[in-house]
This record gives sequence, structure tokens and C-alpha cells, in this order.
Amino acid sequence: MVQVRFLPSEKTVDVAPGTDVLEAARQAGIEIETPCGGDGSCGECLVRVLEGEIAGPSGVVSPSRTVGDLYALACQTQVLDRSVSLDVPEQVGSEGGLATEGDTEALVRPDLLPRPDDLEPIAVKRAFTVPSPMPEDGLSDLDRVARSIRDGGGPSEVSFALSAMRAVATAVRAPGGLVTTTLLLGDQRAHVIAVEPGDRTGRHFGIAIDLGTTTVAVRLLDLATRQAIATRSDYNGQVPCGADVISRINYARKPGHLEELRSRALETINRLTHELAGTHGVDKLEIREAVISGNTVMTHLFLGLGPEHIRLAPYTPTVLFCDPLAAGELSLDIHPESRVHLSPCVGSYVGGDITAGLLCTDLAADTEEVNLFLDIGTNGELVIGNRDFLMACACSAGPAFEGMGIRCGMRAAVGAIEKVSVDAVTGRPNYATIGSAPPRGLCGSGMVDLVANLLLTGWIDPAGKLDRSRPCSHVRVGGKRASYVIAPAEEGLHGEAISISEAEIDNIVRAKAAIYSASTFMLARVGMTFSDLANVYVGGGFGRFLDLDNAKVIGLVPDLPADRFHYLGNTSLMGSHMLAVSRRHRRRQLDLAQRMTYVELSTDPQYMDHYTAALFLPHTDLAQFPSVSDKVARTRRRG
Amino acid sequence: MVQVRFLPSEKTVDVAPGTDVLEAARQAGIEIETPCGGDGSCGECLVRVLEGEIAGPSGVVSPSRTVGDLYALACQTQVLDRSVSLDVPEQVGSEGGLATEGDTEALVRPDLLPRPDDLEPIAVKRAFTVPSPMPEDGLSDLDRVARSIRDGGGPSEVSFALSAMRAVATAVRAPGGLVTTTLLLGDQRAHVIAVEPGDRTGRHFGIAIDLGTTTVAVRLLDLATRQAIATRSDYNGQVPCGADVISRINYARKPGHLEELRSRALETINRLTHELAGTHGVDKLEIREAVISGNTVMTHLFLGLGPEHIRLAPYTPTVLFCDPLAAGELSLDIHPESRVHLSPCVGSYVGGDITAGLLCTDLAADTEEVNLFLDIGTNGELVIGNRDFLMACACSAGPAFEGMGIRCGMRAAVGAIEKVSVDAVTGRPNYATIGSAPPRGLCGSGMVDLVANLLLTGWIDPAGKLDRSRPCSHVRVGGKRASYVIAPAEEGLHGEAISISEAEIDNIVRAKAAIYSASTFMLARVGMTFSDLANVYVGGGFGRFLDLDNAKVIGLVPDLPADRFHYLGNTSLMGSHMLAVSRRHRRRQLDLAQRMTYVELSTDPQYMDHYTAALFLPHTDLAQFPSVSDKVARTRRRG
Repeated sequence: MVQVRFLPSEKTVDVAPGTDVLEAARQAGIEIETPCGGDGSCGECLVRVLEGEIAGPSGVVSPSRTVGDLYALACQTQVLDRSVSLDVPEQVGSEGGLATEGDTEALVRPDLLPRPDDLEPIAVKRAFTVPSPMPEDGLSDLDRVARSIRDGGGPSEVSFALSAMRAVATAVRAPGGLVTTTLLLGDQRAHVIAVEPGDRTGRHFGIAIDLGTTTVAVRLLDLATRQAIATRSDYNGQVPCGADVISRINYARKPGHLEELRSRALETINRLTHELAGTHGVDKLEIREAVISGNTVMTHLFLGLGPEHIRLAPYTPTVLFCDPLAAGELSLDIHPESRVHLSPCVGSYVGGDITAGLLCTDLAADTEEVNLFLDIGTNGELVIGNRDFLMACACSAGPAFEGMGIRCGMRAAVGAIEKVSVDAVTGRPNYATIGSAPPRGLCGSGMVDLVANLLLTGWIDPAGKLDRSRPCSHVRVGGKRASYVIAPAEEGLHGEAISISEAEIDNIVRAKAAIYSASTFMLARVGMTFSDLANVYVGGGFGRFLDLDNAKVIGLVPDLPADRFHYLGNTSLMGSHMLAVSRRHRRRQLDLAQRMTYVELSTDPQYMDHYTAALFLPHTDLAQFPSVSDKVARTRRRG
Repeated sequence: MVQVRFLPSEKTVDVAPGTDVLEAARQAGIEIETPCGGDGSCGECLVRVLEGEIAGPSGVVSPSRTVGDLYALACQTQVLDRSVSLDVPEQVGSEGGLATEGDTEALVRPDLLPRPDDLEPIAVKRAFTVPSPMPEDGLSDLDRVARSIRDGGGPSEVSFALSAMRAVATAVRAPGGLVTTTLLLGDQRAHVIAVEPGDRTGRHFGIAIDLGTTTVAVRLLDLATRQAIATRSDYNGQVPCGADVISRINYARKPGHLEELRSRALETINRLTHELAGTHGVDKLEIREAVISGNTVMTHLFLGLGPEHIRLAPYTPTVLFCDPLAAGELSLDIHPESRVHLSPCVGSYVGGDITAGLLCTDLAADTEEVNLFLDIGTNGELVIGNRDFLMACACSAGPAFEGMGIRCGMRAAVGAIEKVSVDAVTGRPNYATIGSAPPRGLCGSGMVDLVANLLLTGWIDPAGKLDRSRPCSHVRVGGKRASYVIAPAEEGLHGEAISISEAEIDNIVRAKAAIYSASTFMLARVGMTFSDLANVYVGGGFGRFLDLDNAKVIGLVPDLPADRFHYLGNTSLMGSHMLAVSRRHRRRQLDLAQRMTYVELSTDPQYMDHYTAALFLPHTDLAQFPSVSDKVARTRRRG
């Protein structure tokens, strides 16, 4: 047997020589994501050899060799006859997929997070001793449990789910009579969804879900400590049915397609939940609540509601708000009696992801200052307001920043290029990847960096066209088309170059134009300018570190002093997390949703003028971006 | 084509010569029950030829022939080439099975029935016009429906079942915007379980169910008119797993058996419901509420709760009362969002059949007079009380009166002998059957008549032994055993004699002894005698007409003046019917259940003394039955 040591978790395992690295990791209790099923095609299971050697398909991989030989795919390599130390990059022995999520909580201002005194999940667990059955006291098992709940300060009315009823007789007769109930607590009524023998209050879990058009993120929560355990994300299984919400709505019109869309989203959520639960030793029946935040179309599709009226005048959704539903009814694969809180929507294209996300911002607080919240996903949504008003609108940005519709685009996972700079003279890029792994593609924050630096260095012009006049091996021209190579084939994980075409840069320009023009349009509508804003909060699935200076350079966000910007990461997910643990936040969300005015952009001809004006880098009207103009001038001069 | 006319429904149909009578009935919209599947073995599908002829397996059947040729099995006969008129006995073109149920309502004192002003089913239907969607009013389809409910005087909070949500968009966009909602109305909240386009308030159905140990009866209710449409009954599918509740509890202890018992009861209920719905053109999804009344063990088994603690000290049931559950969760095959009201139980052996049945009696009214309610089923239960106290107990009578455990016993269906008299001199019986059909067996009321008349005429003695000393072709002796033949083989439908053995008479004696001694025991406990009782209410599945004088003769009920007795038929079913249509009755039932004191007989040694004393006809202590003693003397003298 040889020892395999995994870092950074420090877990070790003894295996026979020849064992797959993936299998060794599994035996060590480390789950490594293998979306491709372990056939070596997806590249998600990269490990880095720190000490020792492993056998790869093209020879031995070890740190004593060239730098390129540090990395190998766990599914394609075997342990040799000597001990080895392996680094599992960014998965950190628990987190798979999207690498950003662990940090989200730290991005939110502490006073907006649930305080210790308002920690109250949707489902609470209470342990108490139920008196033994007494002859002729006339009380059933249910009566005695209900009485114990009332005696513990619970509501006077107590009802039981059928599955809880079925567990009561055995639970109350366990030695000592100590039972743990899982309760949905209302003001007048407690509904018991589970009864277990013994004290199980320490085992209490929930999930927070961001159901995005392109990306789905699931966070497993320890409700006993109210902390995140881990987060996983993946593309929404609906993506093959259409890249944006409009194409999904169209797809849903054919018979059977609505159910297909529902099943696909569900499958993604259930798979991510199952992976999280499995990795962290949680039984799915121990997960007793869920919060799902998605845009209005995603919410409809998840509920199996035909979304077509959202895109047909007068654009009336079937549901904006509904009471929590049972997980079993929705086929969410957790405890079937769990309640699923669906974040309330505001209008056709401003949904639960926004009402959840707002909880991460000052707009949810009692402030006079006017703030702006930009949530940049496949749909871009924005909210402007303070304690007196809240206005929201949405625009179609497309999935570019989430890595879709860009050939080398990818979500923020191991191997994604997340930072790029460009040499002004040579045009050569310098990049960093998540997990320092060989590059697999370009995530949202990398795209912003790339386009900003190409513009600052003059390698693209304000229309996004590459400079063909200077010789540069990274600018490849073929006929009328040109593209920019960030990583040549020999550096790429799959032996393919990572590049971006002018057409793809144009995609990015259109995405940022949609979002920026929605902001200027909304401000104009309330008679304000960007300078009236106290703070600009930016959320979205860019990655861990969106460089807001670079976002300003490309004209995605307004040209304001840096201290007014706050990058918050995946606000829909973080908001869902807060909702899962705090009743006060659930009430506040409902209040925000009810106060918000929804503005429909698509029917307003003025919006198109704002949009067209924004189709340059940073903007047609450079007066709106004075600091960027200066910067371009300075950088080019230096170059 | 030849015409077939069915009576009493007066429905006609034209069919080709050679068509099965059963098929002709089906085409005429008359469903004839065929429990055996139409192979001629069960005898349930008897029809009587009024005019014309049909072809039977042993020749032509017509009224011009002998009396025996009037009847034929619909499944075994074909239409000839001339028109024919057929009577469908007792099924009356709609009612199958148990023939008593149509009359039950008439047996209950009118002031105890729901009044027009307290008619409020569990689910109510309301039709109204929902305003069209308006651009930018910010209201979803659900919001507009909820607002219409509130505007119509409904509660302020409105929630929706998922399946109702899925139907809303299409319903509110139907021409005119007229929709019908099915609501569960609470004080503060309305829960919408269905939304349909148009005015569907005239199509609103429910089911009332008596879930007996031996017999299950289902009544289809028109909730728009609050009337019974029809009733069907059959043996509980659990019967093969044990004849009484104790054997069912024992059966349930083995792995998988609890679920089997649950499925068997469910299958019986779902089948009867399906037959009723099919016959009356009701879609199962139009049935939107159910009331189920069963004893405590039946209630546990129906809910899938292990019943073993009911029979183990300290005899603590898991549930006595629970909030209504969703039909879908219980696999009851009606609209899955329907709420199922389970009649509350009082103790281990006094269940929901009693709290439902009490509603048919004065004991539910605000009276000072002390009344007794006897519900005679496989378990005998009795309640004694007035406005100040209610005491209940149960005894094990066995299923004899429902036709089980007696070889020629049967439930009260077509062909059952329901009345019998015996000639004092010759010992020859004279009997009448339900539907005047050839006899198939003996139902409960027939048994009471038979035993009473055999006693009065001296053909049995007070111990239930037949008189072997007088020659009589109806008394058949074989060794130590003797039996009495009610119908010789040539009269019986299947060519078999219908008889009763001394051992079976002893079964009946033990059944009546259990019930009578429970009554005397309870009265003794409260320091009263029978003469203190204002009324004695008798319920049970005997048949249409229980002869209470004969019940007195055998010592089943006390020797009181005839005007104090009230036979109420199936009170559990009639009570369920009332509960299904009246909220006031649902509240009253809960109040009764909570007020009732449960007395456990099985642990009280005194009960056994009472029981032993009652094991004679009418009783060991003839002083308790002065009028019966007189009658015996008089009848024998006449003989």
C-alpha cells in the first residue's frame, strides 16, 4: 500500500499501487467533481502533484519535471508505488465547481447580515421529553407531543404532517422519551413536519438556491449554526433549450416542453444538492427547508407554470408571490415536508433573485441616500431607491459574463482565466487562472479585464475592433475577421488556444451597453444623475474578484469614485442564505417586493436611444466617463 | 334492433338481438354491480323479467313461465329478437349493493339534520368574474383571483395549491373572465384548491365514508344541493387479514402488513367511489372533499399508523384527532388537493364512527334527558349521557350481524333474507328477501328475526339449542350438531340450502350478550337503570328494518317501551354525510369528542360477570325482560 496525501485538507489514505487518483480521493472522503463522468474530457478534476509522482496517460507527472507536468486529471491517472502529495485546487476538499461562493458572506456589510437575535429558520428543531403514556389520561401520542410543544412556549394549535404522525409512536417510546420535533412555527399554529427519537437538534440543514437562467448555485446550510457548509454550482440544465429567458418561454410553448424545462432545472438542483449532502455526510432527509431565488421566468418554470403571458402584452405573470410549498410537491429531493420559500417577484423581468439580492445592499436598510443595485446575469436587473422609493427594471444582457455564447467562455471554476493584463507595446497578455491551473477558458471577470486592457492599450478601438496595423502574434486575422489569443494552444489544458473574436467582444459590448443604458434611463426617469448615488452595488456570477476599475473602463458601471462601488458576488445566493436563516429577512424581503415599482423597458422607445449610445467603449458620450478618457490617454502615452 | 326497457328507471335502449343484458344496461346508463366480474358466480346482478323473454343459460326466462323463471343473472343472459322489460331490483338504476342507505336520512330526527343556514361544506365553490390583466397595475393572475375572493367577502389571506396555480392563467383568460374557485375557507385564510373557467358551482361533489371493520360504505354527495346522490357498500378489503380489530392489529405486526392493510381499505373505498362516480357521470376530480368515520383501529390503519399500542397497556392510540389531510397524500382517488376530514376518536375502541354517529342522536343536542346510543357493528360501541356528561365504551361483538362468521350470512344486499317468521306448530319458516329476489343468504335483521321467532315458538331454548324432540323437516340433526334450514336448496339462488347451525346461533348469542352487558355495566357505573333512559338509539349495518321488538326478544336491547327505541341505520355514514355539508356539525362533533369519557371494559373484571349473565335468550335474569317472558309464554300458548 502507498500513502496518498491530499492538500489543503490534509487527508491521507493508503491505497494499492495502480489505484486511480479519483478513487483514492473518494476513499479519503474528498469528492472531486467529474461532470463528464470521468472520461477525461471536461477537465474539472485537475489535481496538482506537490511531492512524489503519479502515472498519467502520457507518462509520469511529478513536480521534478517541467511546470506543465505539475497538473493531471484525477480520473486519468494512477498512483505509483511511492507515496504522493496532491493538491486539489480550489475544491479545498469540499467545494466543487464555482470557486467564488465561500467568500460571498464577507462581501456583504456585516450590519445587513442576520443578527444573532433574528436567527429563525423556516423550520426549527426543538428537543424535549414527552411524558410516558398514562392509563386513562385520555391523551394520544400526538396529544402528548402537542402539549410538550405548547408547554415549551409554542403556539396553542399544533398540527402534524402525515409522515410525522407515522414516526411519533416509536419516537415517544424510545428510552427517556426525549424526542426532537421539526416545526414550522406560525403565530398561532405550529406544524410538525418530523419527529425523531433523541436530541437531533445538532443535525439540522437547509439549502439556499440561486436559480439563474444560465447558472444554478446551491448552498448547503447548517441551520444549527446558521453557517454555510459549502456551495456548488453548475450550468442550468435548461441551457440546451435556449440561452435566455425569451428563448425558454418560446421553447415552453410546445407540448411537453414546460414539463421538460421544469425537470431540467430540478435535475440540476437535485444533483448539486445530492453532491453537497453526500460530500458532507448529510442525509437528504436531514435537509428540512429550502429557499429558491430566481427571476420571474425561472420561478414560473420551476413551478410548472406556463410563462408565455410574461412576454405577451400586457406582460402579466401568473404568480409574483406565493406561500411556501412542500418540497415533495415540487419534487425537490430533500425532506418532502420541507417548506420551500420562493423569493417573491416584482414584475415580468424583475424576480426573486433581485428581492433576495437587495437584502445584501443598503437599499434594504432605512436610508435617505439613494443607492443603485446592479445584478448582472443573463438578464441584467437594476434597482434604484432609498427608504422612500424603489424602482426596478430589467434588460437582456445575455449570458456572456457567465461564459455562454463566447466560445472560450466558462463559468468561474478551476482553470478559468479570471485576471488578464495586456502589454501595451507587444500586445502580449499576462493572465491568472482560478486554482493556478492550466487555462480552460475565460470567466466573466477575465472578460472585463481583457476588454478593458485591450482598450487601455489601444489594441482595440472604442468600437471593439482589434488593431490590425501593428504586428502581434496574439492578434490573428483571417479575412474580415480577427481574434485575440489569450493563451496559445500549448498552454491550454486541452491543447487548444484560448481566444476571443471581435464578434465575441461585440457580444460583451452589447451586454454592458444594455446594463449601462438601463441605469441611465432609470436615473433620467427620476430626474437624477449618477453623481446623486451614494453607493453602487454590483452582484453577479463574474467570479471572485470583479475589477470595478476595469468595469468602469469598458463602460459597464458609471464613472464614479472607487469608494462608492461594492462588489457583492452572487447576491441572489447570499440573499437566499439570509432568508433561510432569518424570519426578519423574509419579512423585509416581502416588504421590499411590495414597495418596488416595476418599470418595463422593452416598451419604452427612449430606452433604445440610451442603449445605442452605449454601444461604444466606454460610451459614445465620453463626457460621461472623464476618468476613463484620462486613463486611456495616460496608458497609451506610457505605452 | 330490439328495445330493452329497464324499470324502475324507465330507461330504454335499442340493441342487437343477442346482446348481453349487462351490456344493454350499460348502454342505457344503468350500472349493475358485478363483484365477480360477470362470471355468474356472485349473484349480485339479478334482474327480473317483467314483459317479454330473455335467453338464460338453461333456457328462456319469461314471466309466462313458473315463478322461479322470473329472475336471471344479467351477466349470463342475452336479449332475444323481441322487446323486453326488465326490473333491476333495489339497485333502482343507481344504487348498488347495500339497499338500506337511501333511507337513513329519513330515520334521523329532522331538527338534528343540518339546517339550510349551516350548510357549509369543507370545500366551497365560488364563481366570479376576474378583471382582465392590466398593463402596469402590477398584479399577477394570482393577485387578481385573490382580490376577487376578498372582494366577495372572503378572508384577507389567500393561498393557492400548486395545481390551482397551474390552472389560473388559462382560466382567467377564458372569455368573460368568469372563473369558479374551490376554496377551503378558514377564519383568516382561504386556500384555493382549484380554479376552473366558467361557472362550475353546479358541479360540486363530496364523499362520506363509513370505514367499518367488516363493511365499507361510500355515499356520493351533491354539495351544490347538499343531497345524497347514491350509496354503495362492500366488505372491507381487510377482512381476509382478520375478522375483528384485534386480529387486524396482530396481522399488522409483520413487516409490510401495515401497508397491506392500508392498501386494502383504500382499494375498497376507491373502487366504491369510482363505481359511484362512473354511474352518476361525475369525474373523480370533481369530488373535492371527503369525510371518513371509522373506529380507532380503522383510522390508524387508514393513516398507515401502527395500531399495536392500542392493544398494549396502557392502551394509548397514536392519534385521536388530526387536522384534515390532503386526499393525494392519503392516496384517496379524488381531487388530490381535497381535504379529508377524519372523524375524531375518543379512545382505543371508541372511534370516529361513534363521534359521527352521535350527531344522528339526541345525545348531540342540549338535553337534560339521559339517552343511550348503541352502535352495533363488528365492535359494539355505546354512549350514554346528556348535556352534562357523556360516557362511552366498546365491546367486541364480532361480525355476525354483518354476515361474517355465519356460513349463510351476508350483508344487506339484493337476495338477503331480511325478515323471517317461524310457524310455532310446524316449525316452517316464512321469509322475505331484499328485492324479492331468490334468497342468497341471511342479513343482520333476518338473523335477529330468526333467532327471536325460534325462541318465541320454542324451536330453540334459552341456551339457543334446537328442539330435536318434535319432527320438523327444517331441523336437521347430525350427531351432536343440529341446524335450522330457512330456505331449502331448491329455493336458494345457487341451488344451496340457506341454514344456520347451533354453533352459529351461539355466535349471535355471544354478540348480543357483549352489547347488552356493556349497557348494563355502564348504567351500573353511573348508578342508573334502563328505566332512567329517555331514548335508546340503535345504529348499525343490520339492514333497512331492524325489528326492535325482536331485538328485545333476543336480549340485544333492553326491555323498554317501543316508543323509546329509534333505529337509525348506518349512523356512521349518515353522520359523515352531515359532517361533509355542515361546519356546525364538524364543530359539534369535536366538542362531543372532547367531552366524552372513555371507559375501558376489557380491564374491568365486573364486565365479565355482566357478560356471562347475558349469555342466555333473552337473559339469565328474566326479571330484566318481563315483557319478553310474557310474550314467550303467550306465543307458546297460542302455538
